[in-house]
Amino acid sequence: MRTRAAVAVQAGKPLEIMEVNLAGPKAGEVLVEIKATGICHTDEFTLSGADPEGLFPAILGHEGAGVVVDVGPGVTSLKKGDHVIPLYTPECRTCPSCLSRKTNLCTSIRATQGQGLMPDGTSRFSTLDGDPILHYMGCSTFSNYTVLPEIALAKVREDAPFDKICYIGCGVTTGIGAVINTAKVEIGATAAVFGLGGIGLNVIQGLRLAGADKIIGVDLNPAKKEMAEKFGMTHFVNPKDCENVVQEIVNITKTPFDQIGGADYSFDCTGNVKVMRDALECTHRGWGQSIIIGVAPAGAVIETRPFQLVTGRVWKGTAFGGARGRTDVPKIVDWYMEGKIEIDSMITHQLKLDEINKGFDLMHAGESIRSVVVY
Amino acid sequence: MRTRAAVAVQAGKPLEIMEVNLAGPKAGEVLVEIKATGICHTDEFTLSGADPEGLFPAILGHEGAGVVVDVGPGVTSLKKGDHVIPLYTPECRTCPSCLSRKTNLCTSIRATQGQGLMPDGTSRFSTLDGDPILHYMGCSTFSNYTVLPEIALAKVREDAPFDKICYIGCGVTTGIGAVINTAKVEIGATAAVFGLGGIGLNVIQGLRLAGADKIIGVDLNPAKKEMAEKFGMTHFVNPKDCENVVQEIVNITKTPFDQIGGADYSFDCTGNVKVMRDALECTHRGWGQSIIIGVAPAGAVIETRPFQLVTGRVWKGTAFGGARGRTDVPKIVDWYMEGKIEIDSMITHQLKLDEINKGFDLMHAGESIRSVVVY
Repeated sequence: MRTRAAVAVQAGKPLEIMEVNLAGPKAGEVLVEIKATGICHTDEFTLSGADPEGLFPAILGHEGAGVVVDVGPGVTSLKKGDHVIPLYTPECRTCPSCLSRKTNLCTSIRATQGQGLMPDGTSRFSTLDGDPILHYMGCSTFSNYTVLPEIALAKVREDAPFDKICYIGCGVTTGIGAVINTAKVEIGATAAVFGLGGIGLNVIQGLRLAGADKIIGVDLNPAKKEMAEKFGMTHFVNPKDCENVVQEIVNITKTPFDQIGGADYSFDCTGNVKVMRDALECTHRGWGQSIIIGVAPAGAVIETRPFQLVTGRVWKGTAFGGARGRTDVPKIVDWYMEGKIEIDSMITHQLKLDEINKGFDLMHAGESIRSVVVY
Repeated sequence: MRTRAAVAVQAGKPLEIMEVNLAGPKAGEVLVEIKATGICHTDEFTLSGADPEGLFPAILGHEGAGVVVDVGPGVTSLKKGDHVIPLYTPECRTCPSCLSRKTNLCTSIRATQGQGLMPDGTSRFSTLDGDPILHYMGCSTFSNYTVLPEIALAKVREDAPFDKICYIGCGVTTGIGAVINTAKVEIGATAAVFGLGGIGLNVIQGLRLAGADKIIGVDLNPAKKEMAEKFGMTHFVNPKDCENVVQEIVNITKTPFDQIGGADYSFDCTGNVKVMRDALECTHRGWGQSIIIGVAPAGAVIETRPFQLVTGRVWKGTAFGGARGRTDVPKIVDWYMEGKIEIDSMITHQLKLDEINKGFDLMHAGESIRSVVVY
């Protein structure tokens, strides 16, 4: 079949909207009509050429929602008409990682996914001339129709709006999941969130959900304060307005009883390795945990004195918020539908596929939290 | 009173054995006759001048065992004749850290202890001319008699030999505790231990106690293999004999089912920041935890790509093995007396106080695991 798609022809160039060929689903695969897709910083990271593992030409996009159109042989958990969210982190439930019960990082199709291919080592996409186009993160939601492995699709309720729940395919789950799955924040904890963009806001609402007491947001842009407060931020720190952001957070978290201070948890949502160090060092001596969420530039390294860890701080990271996609994503969709979490106000721009490059422009200008393309 | 002590007069110089004055215990303090003391790398670190927080003149030593001789006003938990192990990490049970139930790093007397003083801000030691001599890590076990806060003494059973259990005051508890308190290693886990000295061997016996399956020791010195095997090491890796120590450990931990590989836990017992990075990176994607035990040189930093953490590895540290001294140290003494853990063969040299500098020479030459001074 043919489908319209925004193709990343080469690094650093705008996406090109075109008709492409899409082969039908093979064994264990599913054809999905994408109804809406968010534009995430990770798409931008790859498109810019900064991602050393970026491959071209490819169809980007990994934050979508849609409907099953057809299933390949052997597919048992999905049928035509099911509403689904694509999962760039699949959940096969049979690999050593899934069976470990200790990680969400399913490894069953990692090798081919990293090469932009379906699990059989080929691509379903090609140009009208027959040249192959690569998949991206196993999803390629910048195509109106796409093919995914069955294990990379979460089945969700049918009354949930695609143009909102697509955001659960990455940003919402990453932020909330970092709090509840990776950090396992407890009621009454204190936390600092570095970077109040699309991920940071979701970390903040995750902290509110978890019952955190002090929720400290850190951002260089004072315009972020108002929105973050709506999501549950209790204190705002602008590094430009204080001498030392680490000391500022330590001071905010001191109590009459505890004069040591430091956040119980911190989250880096910036991808800046210097910020990651501050995020670690502002946590409480003895038990503070810092969670890296942001994606750092190629080759960048984090550093600190080992003394920070020897005195009890823990440095962790999270991918897709530690969520097992097929198990956890449907729950998060429920939470949205039940009003337990908020999404609508974070989707600041809605675009047509033809306007997708405008979504990247808005991101660069810092004007959007999330732009969503509706097909 | 007067007591004999080995005094660190200045950095980089041998200890000087001399008579010093010791004032009696003030409120909340206890006078202890030290019966035996180990010589630890941390003493060497400070004596060498490499420790930026080292202060002189001071009486070093923090790995002792002895008998209570006198108690100051208000002391309720100890009496004359009690057998005790000094604790450089005290356990007050009333500070925010102790009450957090999340760390062993009691902070009640941290400030004065770091300055080489008792909690009231003064020293009990002085030269015969009356010039003050500083305490060290709140212990100063290189003095035959010493004064400690009540909260810095673990009461232990009276049938345990001082010349062995003194080692529980630091090395044994640090190594075993890193496994059971900090990493919380589970039965069947795999683990890599970098550095097979006094700490590494105790990590290895901790792993055996915890029921680990593969216990991989890493050391540049092949002579360490035999002893480490006696303590439970199952695999030995000499970085000199393989291209890439990380890959070697990954290969050893692969199974027919799990072809990803990587240790579930790793422990750095070297203090070398490059080794700390290897120790992190040899752990399993998704859940590997690396625990820093070794003390790094002043100013040294650890580094890695944040991707290592984002893909599920956890970087931690431990001090005194996460043990709460007054609660946990008596238990470890019991384990030794019951044959659950081994100490005797690690104490390779026994010295008189006059010979204490020989203990440092043996350490430099790599000839000792532990030298113990018996008074």
